[in-house]
Amino acid sequence: MAGPEGKESKPSRGAFALKTPKGTRDWSGPDMLLRDEVFKSITDVFKRHGGTPLDTPVFELKEILAGKYGEDSRLMYDLEDQGGEICSLRFDLTVPFARWLAMNNIQHVKRYQLAKVYRRDQPAIARGRLREFHQCDFDIAGVYDPMIPDAETLRIIVEVFEALDLGITIKLNHRKILDGLFAVAGVPADKIRSISSAVDKLDKMAWPDVKKEMVEEKGLTEDVADRIGEYVRHSGTVTEMVDFLRANETLCANKSVKAGIEDMALLGSYLQALDVIHKITFDLSLARGLDYYTGLIYEVINLPPKSDDADGSNKRKKDDPASQVGSIAAGGRYDNLVGMYGKRTIPCVGVSFGVDRIFTILKARREREKAAKACGTDVYIMAFGGKEFEGLLLERMDVARRLWNAGIRAEFSPKVKPKLPQQFKAAEDVPLGVILGQEELAAGQVRLKSLGHGEDKSDEKDRGILVKLDDLADEVKKMLL
Amino acid sequence: MAGPEGKESKPSRGAFALKTPKGTRDWSGPDMLLRDEVFKSITDVFKRHGGTPLDTPVFELKEILAGKYGEDSRLMYDLEDQGGEICSLRFDLTVPFARWLAMNNIQHVKRYQLAKVYRRDQPAIARGRLREFHQCDFDIAGVYDPMIPDAETLRIIVEVFEALDLGITIKLNHRKILDGLFAVAGVPADKIRSISSAVDKLDKMAWPDVKKEMVEEKGLTEDVADRIGEYVRHSGTVTEMVDFLRANETLCANKSVKAGIEDMALLGSYLQALDVIHKITFDLSLARGLDYYTGLIYEVINLPPKSDDADGSNKRKKDDPASQVGSIAAGGRYDNLVGMYGKRTIPCVGVSFGVDRIFTILKARREREKAAKACGTDVYIMAFGGKEFEGLLLERMDVARRLWNAGIRAEFSPKVKPKLPQQFKAAEDVPLGVILGQEELAAGQVRLKSLGHGEDKSDEKDRGILVKLDDLADEVKKMLL
Repeated sequence: MAGPEGKESKPSRGAFALKTPKGTRDWSGPDMLLRDEVFKSITDVFKRHGGTPLDTPVFELKEILAGKYGEDSRLMYDLEDQGGEICSLRFDLTVPFARWLAMNNIQHVKRYQLAKVYRRDQPAIARGRLREFHQCDFDIAGVYDPMIPDAETLRIIVEVFEALDLGITIKLNHRKILDGLFAVAGVPADKIRSISSAVDKLDKMAWPDVKKEMVEEKGLTEDVADRIGEYVRHSGTVTEMVDFLRANETLCANKSVKAGIEDMALLGSYLQALDVIHKITFDLSLARGLDYYTGLIYEVINLPPKSDDADGSNKRKKDDPASQVGSIAAGGRYDNLVGMYGKRTIPCVGVSFGVDRIFTILKARREREKAAKACGTDVYIMAFGGKEFEGLLLERMDVARRLWNAGIRAEFSPKVKPKLPQQFKAAEDVPLGVILGQEELAAGQVRLKSLGHGEDKSDEKDRGILVKLDDLADEVKKMLL
Repeated sequence: MAGPEGKESKPSRGAFALKTPKGTRDWSGPDMLLRDEVFKSITDVFKRHGGTPLDTPVFELKEILAGKYGEDSRLMYDLEDQGGEICSLRFDLTVPFARWLAMNNIQHVKRYQLAKVYRRDQPAIARGRLREFHQCDFDIAGVYDPMIPDAETLRIIVEVFEALDLGITIKLNHRKILDGLFAVAGVPADKIRSISSAVDKLDKMAWPDVKKEMVEEKGLTEDVADRIGEYVRHSGTVTEMVDFLRANETLCANKSVKAGIEDMALLGSYLQALDVIHKITFDLSLARGLDYYTGLIYEVINLPPKSDDADGSNKRKKDDPASQVGSIAAGGRYDNLVGMYGKRTIPCVGVSFGVDRIFTILKARREREKAAKACGTDVYIMAFGGKEFEGLLLERMDVARRLWNAGIRAEFSPKVKPKLPQQFKAAEDVPLGVILGQEELAAGQVRLKSLGHGEDKSDEKDRGILVKLDDLADEVKKMLL
């Protein structure tokens, strides 16, 4: 019934374009059903891990959001000043969560939230990049022993993508290692965040281009850039990388790197116990854009896991078209964000699933598999008769009432005297038909007929089985099993 | 874990108030669970009737919304002009639905939508009146025979409140009857909508006050107002009211009234067939504020149905405190709204459920019944041991992994060496405990223990039953049944 989404009609009577705002779309029909399936798969995993749901307003006081997103803040949607508070639409779910923790003085919680967020970015709808898009977040807040909540979060990522049947690799890194490594390479403290952003582009750009950006745009000397390049092009299993880093005395002399390595070694043992270690790549080029991360960071790529060979370089990924999809989930540890709102610091770690990108991937697969249709009705109630046929509307209503009372999804034609072909057409996607005729009704009976796709539905020869009105709901239930 | 909602903390480190914007609130814990129950009860009914879900963007182009809400438009939230399109937050779900129908040229659909809408009204949070609030709409669009979709919509209302176990009365009226009646009484055509609003206040104000408003503020003559008063103070069953109106020759001489009476008579027969007629009061004072209604209008009141005595007056309702709650669902037929966006007119009828008010009523009931807690975890995994106890963290992780793999909701302490009382405290609301000890583990076993509220949980005598690790998930499932 629903037409294609997101298209624009030409200006008509009202003399304005009939469309949704730029970068937004409607959701209906099979898209909506698939989106809800994705939501359910993800939240089922969250609930299994003791997650409790949270919902926050779509807008927040602007001062709550200010200074949390670095230069991306320019992408925020502001509400007009209409003589009250100054508000903006939420930009992510992490900052509202931190505001909620601080406001309610919550010491520890596993919370999840599934909601739309808003960014005035350049939209690319075909790749699932919109201005109004979904995030689905799970975060663990509280003071715990090192790396335990981090390990559970990674386990949750693996469970989610197993539930969605999507192959993934999780790229891991640690802000302490990265920051220490930059310091050892000779990056001035005030340039660490911007050099970090440049390094983060290594999954989309070749090293010479990244180096060029560091030297020409960000003002590093060549030898500092080269030293960075030496380190960050390494990736491998957690064990390999921990060994590699421990073997490097220069790096280990740096306190921040040392602390990061210990975290990663501990995490490795937990990931082993949780049986997810094989999904993990420790990738020193992963940096993540957001300012608020303080420890472990990760990004999930929709790829068959790459082979565990010893060559840690990620050169081969450049040519892999699947790498164009971008990350489908990401997150990390942010221990200082909540402290920005209150007296108390509450360490947090979490992950955000990019539902729209996941949806885009699954929809393409689903279309290949020609699956699931939008119709959700079980029974269509029809009437027919001879010349003096009066439509049997009240009788159809009575039957509908009986079925609805039994919790069965039923419909009938909203016409007083519907024609038989019309009724069969309306029942096209419906598995069962109840057919009312004057004679049968006089005997307290109706015909119940399977409307399978293969057969000629209006075939008079298959008139279905006779069922007593009082038994109808039970018979329908049996046939629906 | 979650603290109370909606409260304000004093300005702290950041020197600004830590709060949600005025008239908005967070949802978490038991409130969130109850809200989702309400959503599910309502959408289950929608699905049973063949409804298909729709989701639209939270904001629309301002020109799409303009001119649809009369003087209430001043309550609309506008987005700031940031150099792109001019947008406003949606004000209801009906106008976005009409825009979607016109944009996609959809001829007929039963759609439902459950989403937040935004109005800069004076909030009254305790009574469930917020600036960000939920609507839950079901609408039938398409050209059908008279009153059939209208009757199904009323049936849906009855099914929803039966599912929620809330007693209701549905007040019905018909715009054609009302408008014709005003014309017969002598109201000038250009005053009909404003007189209609005055009449709509009869459920909150006494007739003399309404009359005063009509005469002093809206400029009617006294005798016109008196003639209106004669009619609109009547209410009763559909049959009673149809008979009453048909008996009045002056009224029946008006074409609009006549058409409305025929609609109501037909509707009455359908409501009888759908077995919902006993929930209905035909109330000539019901007018509804919104401009776009063209036919049947209705409002649902959370009251035990009033007795069907012949005295149609609604005086006695004035003193009933339950009438202060206001309507908990409302709707009607709007045949011209879609035509405002395109060349084609698509008649529609629908209902909007006021989820926040329904939530407020159910929460009060729920609190009386002291029901449902927020914790959703089934099993808490603990460890204990003697002096050389090392916490058994990896072992706890291994057990958690086994339970999660089996789809069981399980948690463990995120401490390396948690103390036993801490673990029991964390498991306070959890029905089952798995207890790990070095000795049992050596034999491939753990203890499984019920953590019922009555008992002393740390009672050493009840150490639970010994279960093989490989049988644990199955045993847990048995105990959870």
